[in-house]
Amino acid sequence: MARPNLQVALDHSDLPSAIGDVVKVGAEVDIIEVGTILCLQVGAVALQSMRALFPNKVVIADTKCADAGGTVAANCQQAGADWMTVICCATLPTMVAAAKEVKEVQVELYGDWTFAQAQSWLAAGITQVIYHQSRDALLAGESWGEKDLAKVKRLIEMGFKVSVTGGLTVETLQLFAGLKVFTFIAGRGITNAADPAMAARAFKEEIQRIWE
Amino acid sequence: MARPNLQVALDHSDLPSAIGDVVKVGAEVDIIEVGTILCLQVGAVALQSMRALFPNKVVIADTKCADAGGTVAANCQQAGADWMTVICCATLPTMVAAAKEVKEVQVELYGDWTFAQAQSWLAAGITQVIYHQSRDALLAGESWGEKDLAKVKRLIEMGFKVSVTGGLTVETLQLFAGLKVFTFIAGRGITNAADPAMAARAFKEEIQRIWE
Repeated sequence: MARPNLQVALDHSDLPSAIGDVVKVGAEVDIIEVGTILCLQVGAVALQSMRALFPNKVVIADTKCADAGGTVAANCQQAGADWMTVICCATLPTMVAAAKEVKEVQVELYGDWTFAQAQSWLAAGITQVIYHQSRDALLAGESWGEKDLAKVKRLIEMGFKVSVTGGLTVETLQLFAGLKVFTFIAGRGITNAADPAMAARAFKEEIQRIWE
Repeated sequence: MARPNLQVALDHSDLPSAIGDVVKVGAEVDIIEVGTILCLQVGAVALQSMRALFPNKVVIADTKCADAGGTVAANCQQAGADWMTVICCATLPTMVAAAKEVKEVQVELYGDWTFAQAQSWLAAGITQVIYHQSRDALLAGESWGEKDLAKVKRLIEMGFKVSVTGGLTVETLQLFAGLKVFTFIAGRGITNAADPAMAARAFKEEIQRIWE
């Protein structure tokens, strides 16, 4: 089974602290994500900075784009992003317009999306989804459960490359054993650690152990 | 019947052109929106600029926030935004977290939202929604119709302050006659006009004529 990628999400509210953290962990991870908070706070310069720092890594713009997909995606691509996220309740024309401008589009699954919708994304050539435990839902006490794992499994079986995120720890990776997860995304679980590089390595080693 | 507001959406990809346009039309409109494209491209400085230029107008951050509502809203508020948008498929905790940080939250209606969800937003104290014709859907040939007007009417009857947007022209305002629309939002319909100030005034005069 292909080994899942490790992605660091930079959910900072300013560029200097994001840069300070990413230079510590960039070499350890496969994918670097400019998180929504950072996109909205800093703009395209955040993407440009990650591209300059890591010319050979995949850089993602987590715009959670809901409309004007073509323009947002063209701007992200110009700033150096490889992939870009769109929100699941965006219309199909928005997703398709975005997909024309960046290498790949990832659909962020929030709220009441359906597998019928997911099938329509596949039919339109969009093969990546991100299964999310909402940060605010986590704060409200929710967590990963059988219900989530069953949905992740079904999406993988449909043919999606499925990234998972939301409150992941090294310990929770074991929950996904046996599933062909595409990427695990961790944010503060890495960047807020006392030693971010060591935290990233701990994620990576546990991924290597489980998906050997 | 209360007269609808006029809101200009700044959907520019760079700050100088947004500033160039907004100084022409700011005095003519009630509300100034920093559009999603501009938020993502330029960051908080776009909001700070609008607040500095128009200290007494309502300034909106059209973040279409889907997660981390508290952080995104606190950042927007600090940058000078009065109101902020959230996407309809965000979880209720995300919307509520955002609503604690800015004066008002507006739910952007895209895709397959339901009136039951809308009722849950009202119950949580969120009283503004934005009824959208998706720009990409408009590009794909869709337009305002009876189906849209019926939904707008029902949302107003539920107690929402309903803003409408998407391909609006001075001519299409007549479609909404008799409806207590809260705000009409126009972007390129104003900023791309040969004379943006005159275009804004034409919208305003038509609103005054219909909702006298």
